[in-house]
Amino acid sequence: MSLSPQTNGVYAIAATPFHPDGALDTASVDRLTDFYVQSGATGLTILGIMGEAPKLEPEESLQITRQVVGRAGVPVIVGVSAPGFAAMRSLARNVMDLGAAGVMIAPPPALRTDEQIVTYYAQAVEAIGEDIPFVIQDYPLTLTVVMTPNVIRAIVNNHASCVMLKHEDWPGLEKISKLRGFQKAGEMRDISILCGNGGLFLDFEMERGADGAMTGYAFPDMLIDVVTMQQRGERDAAHDLFDAHLPLMRYEQQQGVGLAVRKYVLQKRGAIASDAQRKPGSSLTAAAKAEIEYLLQRLARKDPRAAL
Amino acid sequence: MSLSPQTNGVYAIAATPFHPDGALDTASVDRLTDFYVQSGATGLTILGIMGEAPKLEPEESLQITRQVVGRAGVPVIVGVSAPGFAAMRSLARNVMDLGAAGVMIAPPPALRTDEQIVTYYAQAVEAIGEDIPFVIQDYPLTLTVVMTPNVIRAIVNNHASCVMLKHEDWPGLEKISKLRGFQKAGEMRDISILCGNGGLFLDFEMERGADGAMTGYAFPDMLIDVVTMQQRGERDAAHDLFDAHLPLMRYEQQQGVGLAVRKYVLQKRGAIASDAQRKPGSSLTAAAKAEIEYLLQRLARKDPRAAL
Amino acid sequence: MSLSPQTNGVYAIAATPFHPDGALDTASVDRLTDFYVQSGATGLTILGIMGEAPKLEPEESLQITRQVVGRAGVPVIVGVSAPGFAAMRSLARNVMDLGAAGVMIAPPPALRTDEQIVTYYAQAVEAIGEDIPFVIQDYPLTLTVVMTPNVIRAIVNNHASCVMLKHEDWPGLEKISKLRGFQKAGEMRDISILCGNGGLFLDFEMERGADGAMTGYAFPDMLIDVVTMQQRGERDAAHDLFDAHLPLMRYEQQQGVGLAVRKYVLQKRGAIASDAQRKPGSSLTAAAKAEIEYLLQRLARKDPRAAL
Amino acid sequence: MSLSPQTNGVYAIAATPFHPDGALDTASVDRLTDFYVQSGATGLTILGIMGEAPKLEPEESLQITRQVVGRAGVPVIVGVSAPGFAAMRSLARNVMDLGAAGVMIAPPPALRTDEQIVTYYAQAVEAIGEDIPFVIQDYPLTLTVVMTPNVIRAIVNNHASCVMLKHEDWPGLEKISKLRGFQKAGEMRDISILCGNGGLFLDFEMERGADGAMTGYAFPDMLIDVVTMQQRGERDAAHDLFDAHLPLMRYEQQQGVGLAVRKYVLQKRGAIASDAQRKPGSSLTAAAKAEIEYLLQRLARKDPRAAL
Repeated sequence: MSLSPQTNGVYAIAATPFHPDGALDTASVDRLTDFYVQSGATGLTILGIMGEAPKLEPEESLQITRQVVGRAGVPVIVGVSAPGFAAMRSLARNVMDLGAAGVMIAPPPALRTDEQIVTYYAQAVEAIGEDIPFVIQDYPLTLTVVMTPNVIRAIVNNHASCVMLKHEDWPGLEKISKLRGFQKAGEMRDISILCGNGGLFLDFEMERGADGAMTGYAFPDMLIDVVTMQQRGERDAAHDLFDAHLPLMRYEQQQGVGLAVRKYVLQKRGAIASDAQRKPGSSLTAAAKAEIEYLLQRLARKDPRAAL
Repeated sequence: MSLSPQTNGVYAIAATPFHPDGALDTASVDRLTDFYVQSGATGLTILGIMGEAPKLEPEESLQITRQVVGRAGVPVIVGVSAPGFAAMRSLARNVMDLGAAGVMIAPPPALRTDEQIVTYYAQAVEAIGEDIPFVIQDYPLTLTVVMTPNVIRAIVNNHASCVMLKHEDWPGLEKISKLRGFQKAGEMRDISILCGNGGLFLDFEMERGADGAMTGYAFPDMLIDVVTMQQRGERDAAHDLFDAHLPLMRYEQQQGVGLAVRKYVLQKRGAIASDAQRKPGSSLTAAAKAEIEYLLQRLARKDPRAAL
Repeated sequence: MSLSPQTNGVYAIAATPFHPDGALDTASVDRLTDFYVQSGATGLTILGIMGEAPKLEPEESLQITRQVVGRAGVPVIVGVSAPGFAAMRSLARNVMDLGAAGVMIAPPPALRTDEQIVTYYAQAVEAIGEDIPFVIQDYPLTLTVVMTPNVIRAIVNNHASCVMLKHEDWPGLEKISKLRGFQKAGEMRDISILCGNGGLFLDFEMERGADGAMTGYAFPDMLIDVVTMQQRGERDAAHDLFDAHLPLMRYEQQQGVGLAVRKYVLQKRGAIASDAQRKPGSSLTAAAKAEIEYLLQRLARKDPRAAL
Repeated sequence: MSLSPQTNGVYAIAATPFHPDGALDTASVDRLTDFYVQSGATGLTILGIMGEAPKLEPEESLQITRQVVGRAGVPVIVGVSAPGFAAMRSLARNVMDLGAAGVMIAPPPALRTDEQIVTYYAQAVEAIGEDIPFVIQDYPLTLTVVMTPNVIRAIVNNHASCVMLKHEDWPGLEKISKLRGFQKAGEMRDISILCGNGGLFLDFEMERGADGAMTGYAFPDMLIDVVTMQQRGERDAAHDLFDAHLPLMRYEQQQGVGLAVRKYVLQKRGAIASDAQRKPGSSLTAAAKAEIEYLLQRLARKDPRAAL
């Protein structure tokens, strides 16, 4: 149950279920964990941005980790990005003690130069220890930090414990090709590349050499089908299924309201009891809900899982 | 041939055609203008970001305006955003003298507060004169300036010459609803709302009250069909056509490489002689071209216009 | 020992002392607290940016608060800015239980529009409770959030528990005049205004109506003298003393290395045992140390407290 | 009259004089040019940010260049930063034809990675031609582009026509030391380093190895004295004079209102007829003017040139 450069498949970015009053909904944590695993997820990623991690109290973060790791039966990656290395270290050590498979580290937004980014990961590894497998989160659209392929290569080669890239640069297809080119040329150690960005380019990312997805789209079962079909070489079928979902995926990928859409659909699928977000959160207007219903109805004509 | 709050339909954001050596391809300017008009475009918008306007010399900007206005036979909006009001004024006065229907003004990225934005538009109107119809460009993703509905309302109510909003906030559906709500409540003068953002939400934007699109997707004929069908109430048909194009639209909307994709498809459709960009430009790898071909082939099964 | 709109004087932004190995230096916490109080500080502010708060573990934050509040004998403000309201609430309630006089809240960098900022403070007050006196931190240079005087007025008028503004907009003299003008016109409740920004404009800020300073310059005794002299109307004397310190103040105000300069001087003054920063920190080159020595020697000719 | 890696002294960043109605004040262009030269300026830099360059029409930029170059009798550097390379090229070729000594190029704010910055300068040199001496403007506080010493070294070594760095990183003392270290180690070609940032650190920048200043402080004669004294090894005298000016320099360096302060003092010194800025500009309140008068009076006790 550990991460490795050969890890592939779909790691579902788990939502964090709350009651309407903002309290953690622990029953739904179990239900949602089961939902992801039964959907075929290879692993889970918890305490990320879309998991409302910054809104959690420290003890809640550990409680969720304990509960999910204990129940999932698949590897669990925990986001440990923090403003300082003391908090990162203690969270990382604690979640690994609880049985996590690895941790994910995003660069803080103030980083600008190549040197700053490479140095930051060196300091982070020094802080958490060289024995914890970690994932680089490369997400310039939200984090405003731009990592070139050379920078990623330097981090991977500097740290044996770097086993995976969560790739969500945008656009990012050429970046995958470039990184895989480094590996073929023997210039970079092998790493696993799982793609985020709501899955909006997963169809082609798989063809460029990605190992799968790490994202929270409310139909993880579809992501798994696409990854599997692409691995089997069933290109057209993969695109057919993907294209059927694209209108809803696009709708869910809207910044700000995206999480509200995702939780709304997860609730309709029975995976969580309430679509409430802890404050400050976003919510859906009646118009938005009607649009989602319409998108689901249209999707259900091609994928019966959307008939809710 | 002038703009008004009742303007609707599709204003095509025109690419600027160059020869491979970077020189302006004036023959293709004619060809592309004809292409847009024959596609059914209600109007044209030139010298925007996707028209590579910042790379043009001042005299070239006027030359293109003269050529397009003289040939199009439909209203032409000209982007006049500039670092200073002197340049904005001279460009605006010049293009109106050449027959432009109006100008488009984007806020400079340094603006932050509501007051700064409202003041900026007041200064811009003072500079260009109150007699020139203008369009507000609301594009936070690229410009980093966030305009609330209240700010847009203030600008519209302050300036009778403000006739249109180029809406490309993201996400933006609720913003359209909010602005139309202001109008219904009598709190804001009527304006035309045309949507940008590559058209990625045009299906629902029309249902929220938009008057059409202003974007440069390489199939303006599809945008026009969607707008027309929505205006006629043919909702399902509009979504069917839109969804068929969404995989390619999404591919074209990638920041940085998007313009290369767009020009590549326009060239394949015979609208321009070369897909060259003036430096600094982006280009397509062989892998990217193969992906576009695959997307076009898949699209052609549902829309024969994509069989190139 | 509570904050009020009439609070004035100098609140020293307290550094957090560490041992060279990064462990908290609790003996120096006492020593530094005594140093500030003996320098004449009216109050202390702890757990701010310059106190390396993001590098602390949650339990360390409480430990420092307990220790400083228990020893200081003057009001203590605690920075409680946090990525989420749950963490902000628990920290705020805990430090008030420990005897803090109030809390300070900075807006998160993602806020852009006036409405977003006003709403954020409303949510923060709802989270921590209306019974906790709070300070607005207005620091655009670092936080990138720009608050107009109108926005500050709205927050002050919306929340009776808002008692103070930490003013460090830059430039900011006119802002003080504008806010005091609101008060005179009866448009805004009275608040205390203490100025930050390293004290670089304290000479004139006092003349514009500020109530004092809240900053961490290594000579808080000088800040107190300047505030006192200005309160007594000894203008020229205040400027003479201020100008003598300005070369060093400027040197200490350099972003990034500023904290290293400050801790170096505090160590030389005997206020802390080590100038170490917890990682990631900055350090001084030999050239920088020599420059500080030179500045201190020059200053000592006019202010004997600098003869170290 | 050309630039070289041995260039030293003070290049005054020239203001652009306007009449109160916003028209270019050509008589004052002559007067101001004479003022700078009689103050002892080694050279002039025109059409920079503080010269309100973005507010000028293209023909005005050339007119000012012609006038200043024709009159100054010292080398003139012209800012040619532009959103596109076509405009940069035509401006650069034109001003060199008019007799400019070189051009200054700032990186556009969108650049992030080391590669992007190095590539940008390569494209710029290709655009303007390898025969035009150019200056790198390194100004992260305003431009948001961070260039490491390694990046500057790469640009310098890639382009023989790079002869100077306008250094205004902040903080920046260590950067000067690092770059001079590269030169001593034979790893970087020699370049001239002139410092900006309003001169706020000129005292120590000279000691770290800078060749002088390029900034627009309204007392260029003082900057020249400081540079000369430091070159002669009169360290204490240099600091004494510098420290006397620091309160006013700091006041002039406020973002936004700084240019208004500078023009106000230049007008008082008789260098320009009006302190008007072309719109959009900033202006001084009565309180601000009184503060400047007070600062000048205090300064005049130590430097009679401030007795105005």
